[in-house]
Amino acid sequence: MKAVDWIDGTVRFIDQTLLPAEERFVITNDIQVIAEAIRSLRIRGAPAIGVAAAFGLVLGLRSPDSPDGSSLALRFDRAARLLGSTRPTAVNLFNVLNRMRGVLQAVSGVGDREAIQQLEREARVIQAEDIEACHRIGELGAALLNAGTSVLTHCNAGALATAGDGTALSVVTTAHRQGKIRQVYVDETRPLFQGARLTSWELLRAGIEVVLITDSTAASVLREGRVQAVIVGADRIAANGDTANKVGTYPLAVLAQRHNVPMYVAAPVSTLDPHTLTGNDIPIEERDPSEVTQVAGIRIAPEGVRTYTPAFDVTPHELISAIITDRGVLRPPYDAGIAGVLRKP
Amino acid sequence: MKAVDWIDGTVRFIDQTLLPAEERFVITNDIQVIAEAIRSLRIRGAPAIGVAAAFGLVLGLRSPDSPDGSSLALRFDRAARLLGSTRPTAVNLFNVLNRMRGVLQAVSGVGDREAIQQLEREARVIQAEDIEACHRIGELGAALLNAGTSVLTHCNAGALATAGDGTALSVVTTAHRQGKIRQVYVDETRPLFQGARLTSWELLRAGIEVVLITDSTAASVLREGRVQAVIVGADRIAANGDTANKVGTYPLAVLAQRHNVPMYVAAPVSTLDPHTLTGNDIPIEERDPSEVTQVAGIRIAPEGVRTYTPAFDVTPHELISAIITDRGVLRPPYDAGIAGVLRKP
Repeated sequence: MKAVDWIDGTVRFIDQTLLPAEERFVITNDIQVIAEAIRSLRIRGAPAIGVAAAFGLVLGLRSPDSPDGSSLALRFDRAARLLGSTRPTAVNLFNVLNRMRGVLQAVSGVGDREAIQQLEREARVIQAEDIEACHRIGELGAALLNAGTSVLTHCNAGALATAGDGTALSVVTTAHRQGKIRQVYVDETRPLFQGARLTSWELLRAGIEVVLITDSTAASVLREGRVQAVIVGADRIAANGDTANKVGTYPLAVLAQRHNVPMYVAAPVSTLDPHTLTGNDIPIEERDPSEVTQVAGIRIAPEGVRTYTPAFDVTPHELISAIITDRGVLRPPYDAGIAGVLRKP
Repeated sequence: MKAVDWIDGTVRFIDQTLLPAEERFVITNDIQVIAEAIRSLRIRGAPAIGVAAAFGLVLGLRSPDSPDGSSLALRFDRAARLLGSTRPTAVNLFNVLNRMRGVLQAVSGVGDREAIQQLEREARVIQAEDIEACHRIGELGAALLNAGTSVLTHCNAGALATAGDGTALSVVTTAHRQGKIRQVYVDETRPLFQGARLTSWELLRAGIEVVLITDSTAASVLREGRVQAVIVGADRIAANGDTANKVGTYPLAVLAQRHNVPMYVAAPVSTLDPHTLTGNDIPIEERDPSEVTQVAGIRIAPEGVRTYTPAFDVTPHELISAIITDRGVLRPPYDAGIAGVLRKP
């Protein structure tokens, strides 16, 4: 199952807001559809957002909606601005836009058609790299786990969140193929239930035993010694290792440390952000109040309540046991490790 | 608003499963209705369960459903067994049943009618004591708060959870009348949304500003210094101060300690259980899997997932800054303090 793919010059993605009830794929050649899909979480997960943005950019450049005859550079800016405005926290999005801009600049003078072909090629390289990164993360992460391990995870860092087999869930499925996984406790992940809806669905398809819990129950699971590892993905990792991930990751890390359970963050190097020095500098998206005041379209809270709805929180690096990247497993101190893997090609 | 009341020989309670959409009161003289209401959380909150059980017992003894002419003692046993089987964690229920049994034994020989009258009188004393306990807890707790305090609470420990004005929320509403409360952050409290549905509703009625958050967001709220106190209720407090309360309380306490925010437990002495030595000995109810796999009747998780659904967790006493009881504010060491207030009449 590919969450986002490029087929014959169009983007094909699964609408994650409908899972697990319905498996509906959308095929589009419209950048607006991609931007809306990212904004409304039909496409979600930092690496998947990055890959979708690369493809979306190509769609935006090819589309014949520029009767003003604006230059390719101008159309690129417009497309990048549209995609860059969808969600602020996942750095893969901005890394991809910058990388594509670099390609555009490198090919200046070759003519629009050739330039767009180069950009399409780059988008496919970004996709291929993400697939390979998921694979490497799975192998490197699985090597950290012993036989008979039960894992706790939060939100969805699986195939749905990437172009490949996932980050945290690639570790789980790889370790499962090696016979090491007993079961996976899955935080339901309020408010949008990515754990209940998406992670459960992926793991069951992989034949892995799922134990679904409310987010608050994770503390009891850790305290009772039911899991031997916590593995999560990331939306942005600052230069010092501070990690933004779905809200609820930070308390998990605090509880994991208290109960001596290792806390692993699994992410490709495209999620590393050397320009953001610490977690304090990571922009945290706030979502619409209705995501908390309503469930399945039904209002649960009385009229008149205010809300506070950050989509992410920041786990300070000192609570992270290791960061599993596609270029190696990083251990503290993370600043040196992160700088190191970013220097490597 | 009285969550549970005794009116002309019948019990009147508000069906909390319908709030906040609908304010429906049920009037009954049937112990079975009371038992079902406790089991299905139409009546909930440890003190309210205790008061409802006292009244329910009287209904059970008066009802003419004993064609076998069984003795009052036998009918008492049957009624107490029915009520005692509804929910295992809240100790108020068992404390009330034991207390009523003591009255029955004390009046042996007076005749059934007089005995039942004595038991009804005792039930009304239990109700009056709970109302007064809520009042005292409010006064003693409010004295701990400074002006300009924002509070974080979990689940519902308000008027709906007691016969009176609540435990944790009595502290909040009393402090609010004293002009001390800025706003109250309310954990939505999965899986049954008691915070979103009940606590928000109560606080808005009291004219207090509510900020509703997902349970996972509480860690960010504490970290960002948005609250100066965490105040929760309790379902059972062991002899050493270990406290069972709605699942999610334990991680709150861990995070509160990490961020130097005082963690207060507010509960009447009827929630103290000197016969349970530590939190390890408190029975923890597990709820039905459907409470996690479905929301508002709609299935969110795929078929085939297992669940782990403890309704409560245990906060170790060393994470609790003070226990606010109706007979005084207890500070560590709690074993001596708890034994002390239980000796006082």
